[in-house]
Amino acid sequence: MRRSIATVSLSGTLPEKLEAIAAARFDGVEIFEPDLTGFPGRPRDIRDMAADLGLTIELFQPFRNAEGVDRAGFDRVLRRLDRKLDLMEELGAPLMLVCSNVEPYAINDDGLAAEQLWAMAERAGARGLRLGYEALAWGTHVSTFDHAWRIVERADHPHLGLILDSFHTLALPHDWSGIADLPGERIFFVQLADAPRLDMATLMLSRHHRCLPGQGERDVGAFTDAVLRAGYTGPLSLEIFNDSLRSAPTRQTAKDAMRSLLHVEERARRLEEARRADAASHRPAPRRVELFDPPAPARLDGVAFVEFAVNHATQAALAADLLRLGFHRLGRHRSKDVDLYGMGDIRFVLNAEAHSTAHSYYLLHGASVCAIAYEVDDPLRAVGRAEAFGCHRFEGRVGPNELSLPGIRTVGGELVYFTRRRADGSIDFETDFRLETGDALPTPTAHRIDHIAQVLPEGALDSAVLFHRTVLDMEPEPVVTLADPFGLVRSRAISDHRRRVRFPLNIASGRNTGAARSVSTYLGAGVHHIALETADLFAAAERLRANGVEILAIPANYYDDLAARFDLDDDLLATMARLNILYDRQGDGEFFQLYTQPFQGRFFFELVERRGGYDQYGAANAPIRMAASSQPGTFDTLVG
Amino acid sequence: MRRSIATVSLSGTLPEKLEAIAAARFDGVEIFEPDLTGFPGRPRDIRDMAADLGLTIELFQPFRNAEGVDRAGFDRVLRRLDRKLDLMEELGAPLMLVCSNVEPYAINDDGLAAEQLWAMAERAGARGLRLGYEALAWGTHVSTFDHAWRIVERADHPHLGLILDSFHTLALPHDWSGIADLPGERIFFVQLADAPRLDMATLMLSRHHRCLPGQGERDVGAFTDAVLRAGYTGPLSLEIFNDSLRSAPTRQTAKDAMRSLLHVEERARRLEEARRADAASHRPAPRRVELFDPPAPARLDGVAFVEFAVNHATQAALAADLLRLGFHRLGRHRSKDVDLYGMGDIRFVLNAEAHSTAHSYYLLHGASVCAIAYEVDDPLRAVGRAEAFGCHRFEGRVGPNELSLPGIRTVGGELVYFTRRRADGSIDFETDFRLETGDALPTPTAHRIDHIAQVLPEGALDSAVLFHRTVLDMEPEPVVTLADPFGLVRSRAISDHRRRVRFPLNIASGRNTGAARSVSTYLGAGVHHIALETADLFAAAERLRANGVEILAIPANYYDDLAARFDLDDDLLATMARLNILYDRQGDGEFFQLYTQPFQGRFFFELVERRGGYDQYGAANAPIRMAASSQPGTFDTLVG
Repeated sequence: MRRSIATVSLSGTLPEKLEAIAAARFDGVEIFEPDLTGFPGRPRDIRDMAADLGLTIELFQPFRNAEGVDRAGFDRVLRRLDRKLDLMEELGAPLMLVCSNVEPYAINDDGLAAEQLWAMAERAGARGLRLGYEALAWGTHVSTFDHAWRIVERADHPHLGLILDSFHTLALPHDWSGIADLPGERIFFVQLADAPRLDMATLMLSRHHRCLPGQGERDVGAFTDAVLRAGYTGPLSLEIFNDSLRSAPTRQTAKDAMRSLLHVEERARRLEEARRADAASHRPAPRRVELFDPPAPARLDGVAFVEFAVNHATQAALAADLLRLGFHRLGRHRSKDVDLYGMGDIRFVLNAEAHSTAHSYYLLHGASVCAIAYEVDDPLRAVGRAEAFGCHRFEGRVGPNELSLPGIRTVGGELVYFTRRRADGSIDFETDFRLETGDALPTPTAHRIDHIAQVLPEGALDSAVLFHRTVLDMEPEPVVTLADPFGLVRSRAISDHRRRVRFPLNIASGRNTGAARSVSTYLGAGVHHIALETADLFAAAERLRANGVEILAIPANYYDDLAARFDLDDDLLATMARLNILYDRQGDGEFFQLYTQPFQGRFFFELVERRGGYDQYGAANAPIRMAASSQPGTFDTLVG
Repeated sequence: MRRSIATVSLSGTLPEKLEAIAAARFDGVEIFEPDLTGFPGRPRDIRDMAADLGLTIELFQPFRNAEGVDRAGFDRVLRRLDRKLDLMEELGAPLMLVCSNVEPYAINDDGLAAEQLWAMAERAGARGLRLGYEALAWGTHVSTFDHAWRIVERADHPHLGLILDSFHTLALPHDWSGIADLPGERIFFVQLADAPRLDMATLMLSRHHRCLPGQGERDVGAFTDAVLRAGYTGPLSLEIFNDSLRSAPTRQTAKDAMRSLLHVEERARRLEEARRADAASHRPAPRRVELFDPPAPARLDGVAFVEFAVNHATQAALAADLLRLGFHRLGRHRSKDVDLYGMGDIRFVLNAEAHSTAHSYYLLHGASVCAIAYEVDDPLRAVGRAEAFGCHRFEGRVGPNELSLPGIRTVGGELVYFTRRRADGSIDFETDFRLETGDALPTPTAHRIDHIAQVLPEGALDSAVLFHRTVLDMEPEPVVTLADPFGLVRSRAISDHRRRVRFPLNIASGRNTGAARSVSTYLGAGVHHIALETADLFAAAERLRANGVEILAIPANYYDDLAARFDLDDDLLATMARLNILYDRQGDGEFFQLYTQPFQGRFFFELVERRGGYDQYGAANAPIRMAASSQPGTFDTLVG
C-alpha cells in the first residue's frame, strides 16, 4: 500500500512539511494549494524538493465549484482549469481533486455536471493529467459517493475518476456499503480522516475537528477494507483539517500520522482475515496490495511496577510516605542505587542512581514517575510491535548477570518496560533485586494498582490515544469534562478490555488548573496520581489515619449534597465524612475513594474500593477534589 | 435595577469570586451549587462573607429534574428538596431555581408538573422561601418560557414563580414577544447571557460558549426591555457558562460583567425612549426601576494620532523609516522628548521622554504603539462615558500652558486619548508641538489611517469587543479564521458605522503563529500593523521602491492563482507582481494592498487602496502574507 498525506494536515512551511513527511517514511504527498501559493519558490522547486526527498506528488487539491454551472460560468471554470493544469505540469502532479460544487447557484442536473466534467477531463487528458471527482458532505446537490460515482460513470472519460474520502462518507447517515462494489480502477484516490462525534454541523467538524484515524470514533478501517474489496490499489492518503495539528510540532505529527495509517492497514487486514476465516459462505478475492502486518499485541496482565525518579533526600521522604501507606521495603537493586517497595501486587521502584536516565528525568521534573512497566505474556513481541509502529527501543545500563528489561520510549519521552511473570509466580524484573526475607508481611492496605492518572500538555491527548491504541491495543473511553476552580480539565481514560491497565489522561484547557500546574514541562507527560485498589477502604482509611497519613479534607457541604442525591445510611455518611471518603454510584455499582496529600506538589495517591461492577473513576467527585485541593487549610493531618 | 451575577460565570474559589463580584460593584449574587459544595467552610460562612462584602445572596441554583416524575421518584425529590431548603436557610438564599426536567423518563403532563411544583412550593413557603421555575431550551417536555409559565400559572402558589433566562429564550426559534405581557410580579428572577451564532447543538453552545451580553449576537437588550415592560423589578443577573472565563482572571471578568450589564441597561433604556418618542400610537407604562444612563457616545471622526514608545536609538530608526514612507517631521514637543511626524491626515507621535508612561511601555514591550488618540466631537463627554462604564481616567504629566489631553486606560493597559478638531481645522493636541514651517509639503503617499490591526492574547477578544462596543459605540464585524503556517488566527474587526475607525483584532490559537510571537506579553495587547490609505497604490508603491523601502515579497505562485481566480488584465497582474501588491474583490469593490518589513520584529505598515466600496481587509490574502513572512529570504530590498 502506498502511504500518502496531504500537506494541510501538518503545521509549518511547505519545505518543513515535506521534510517531516519524508522523515516519517511516507511514499507520497498531496499538495494542498494554499501551501503552494504561499511558498516563495516556483512549483518546480517543490517538484525537485519532493524528488530529492523520495516523495511522489500524488495529487494537487482542491479545484472547487467547477461543475453544475451556467455556460458563462463554465467558460471561466475552463480558463481557471487551464491555469491549474499548467501548474500541475510544472509541479509534476498527475491528478487533481475536483470537489462537488457547494455554491447556492449550482445547477441540480447530473447530465450537465457529467458533461462539464467530461470537458474538463478532456483538457486534462490532452496533457496526460487526470481529474478525480469527490463528493463533499455539504455539496449543494452532490454530497454522497454514489451520487458522485453516477456522474463519473455518466461522463465516462478515461481521465476522470472518483475520489473517496472517509470523512465525507462516514459523516453522513448514508449507507456506504456499496463502496465495495465500485470498480476499483475507477477510484483514482482515497483520502482518510477520522473524527470525534461532536454535536455540531458537519462543515465545522470537518474544518476544525478531523483527527487521525484511530484518534476518533469512525471506523476508518472498515471504510478502507471496503475500498480494498472494490479492488483499489492506489495510495491511502491522510487529509486532516485540525486546529490543534495546525500548530503542533511538524515532525511529531508526521510520525503520528504514519502510525495512524499503519493502524488503519492493520484494522483492514483483520477484517479481511475474518472474512477469509468465514470463507465457507463466500470466497474473498485475493488481495492486490501489501498491508502492514505487525506482531500481534501482547496480552496486558497489569502494571508490573512504577518507577520513580528521586534523589537521596526525596527517596527517603517518599519511602517514609510509602511505609505509612502500608508499603514494605522489599529489596535493593544488586548494582544500583535503587530500592523496591511493595504491597500486594503493587511494586514501586525508587531510583536514585546517579548518571541514569532516571536521574536526568529527576533533574528535569523533580521527584516523579519516570517509567511504567507492564506485565505481558511476551515482552519481546510487545517491543517488536512497538517498533513496527515507529517507537524507539530503549536499552538501559545493565550490570553483569542482570536482566535487560525490554523497553520503549513513549511519545512524551517516558519509558515503558515490558516484563512477564515466571513459572514460579515472581515477576522477572525482581531478579535484579536482593529481596529482604524478613517476617511475614501483614495484610496489605491495598493489593493492586487500579489506575494511573496522567496530565498531558494541551494538544497531546490524541497522540497519546493513538499510541496506546496501536502499540498496546488499549481503547479510549468517552471524554468527560471536569470543572477545576481555575479552568476546565478534559479527561479521557484509556484501558484494556479486561481493565487490568487503566490510564485516565487529563488535559487542562487553561494554565491555572491544578492539573496544568502539576505538569512541570510542556514536553513531557506527567503522572498526576496513582490509585490503589483496596478490598475495604474503610479499614484502609482507619489504618492510614492511625499511621498519620495526610488525607485530603473533603468539605462538609459535599456530604450534605451526597445525602440529598443518594439514599445513604446516616451512619455510613458520618463515617465517610469523618474519613474523607468520597462516593459515586453507577447502576448497581458503588465507588469509594480518598486522596492523600501531594508528594512535594507533584503527585498523590488515591485509594479506591469498587463494588458491584462500578467501572468508572468517580468523575463526579473530581471537581470536589480539585476545589478542595486549591483552597487553603484543606489538608488535615489525621493523627489517630 | 439590582445587578447580580452567578458564581459559575467566574474563575476561582468561591471566596475569590465573591470578593471580585463585590469589587466590581454588583449588588447581589447567585450561588451556583458546585461552588458551595467544593467550599471547605459551611454555608453560613458564605452568608457571612457575602454580608461583609455588601452582597445580597439572591438565588441558589440549580435544582434539577424535580417535576414530571412518578410517585416514588417524587418522594425522593421531596427528600432532596428538604435538604436543599435546609441549606438555603443556612445560606440565607430566599429563592431557588428549579429547572425543567431533562431526563428521558420525564412524564409529559402539565397537570402533574403543576401539582408537583405546588407541593414543593408549599414546603418552601412553610420556611418563607420561594421557588422559581425555568424552562431549559433542551428540557424534555418544557423548553419555552410560555410553557413554563402555563405550569406556574396552573400551580398557582404564591411561593412559586417564573424564572426567565435570555439564553434559553433566544436560543430557540420561538416567538418570545409574549414576555412583555406576563405579570411582572410573577417573574421571580431574570438571568441574562449572550451567545455567538455557532452551528452546533444548543446544549453544547450553552455549556461552553455563552458570553457576556454585548459580546455575542443576541439582542439581550430587547429581551430585557420586554422583561421590564412586563413590570419586573427584581435583579438582572448574569449567568455565563464559558470555557474561557473559567480560566480568566477573576477580577477582570467581574469588571467586564458589570460593563456588560450596564450595556444591557442602556440598550433597554434606548428602546424604551424610542417607544416614548412614538407615544402617539401607545402610551408606555411608567418605568419602575432605575436604569443606567451614561453620557451619549461621542461622535468618532477618526484616529487623530498614534503614539509610539521608543528610546533615542529606535526613535531615529523609526523616523528614518517614516521618512522613506513619505512622512515628514512636523514638529517637536514644547517640553518633552517627543517628535511629531505626519502626512495627509496621519499623525504619528514618537515618544522617547524619560520617566514617562511611554518609557515604561518601551521597557516592557520594546518599540511599539503605546497610545491611540481618537478625534471626537466632545472629548470630555467621551471620557465621562468611559468612566461611567468603569474605565480609569489617565492624567499624563503636563507642562506649563500645555494641553491636558483627556485619556483613559483600556482593558489591556494601553492609553486612549480623545482630541477634537478646532474651528481653524487643526487638531487640539498639536498646540503642544513647535511646528516646523518649512517648504510646502509634497503630495503624501497616503492620506489617512485605514485600519490598525492588533493582536490580543488568547481569551481577550470578547473583552475587547465589549470595551469598544460600550465605551466607543463601535460594532464588531463577523469573525474570520486565517491560516498562518504555524496555527490558526481568529480575527474580528471592530469599527464605527461610518468606518472612520477600524480595528481588526486578532487572536492566535497557538503560540507559534507570527501574530502570537509578536505579542511580547500576555498582559498587553499589541498593535501589529497600521494600514494607511492611499488614493493610488501603484504610484505609492513606485515611490516606496524609489525610496528603498523594504516590501514583503509575494510569491509568484500567488499571482498565478490570482490569474486563475479573477479576470485581470495581464499587464496589471505583471505590475502587481513587480510591486508585490495583493488583490481582493468583493462585489464591485476592489482592494489593493502591500506590506512593509516589520520594524524590529514588532509591527509593520500596510498601504491600501479601496475602490468601489470595498469594505473588508483582504482576509483572503492574510494567509499569503503570513506564509510569506515566515519563510526565509522573503523581504526584498527594492532599491529603485
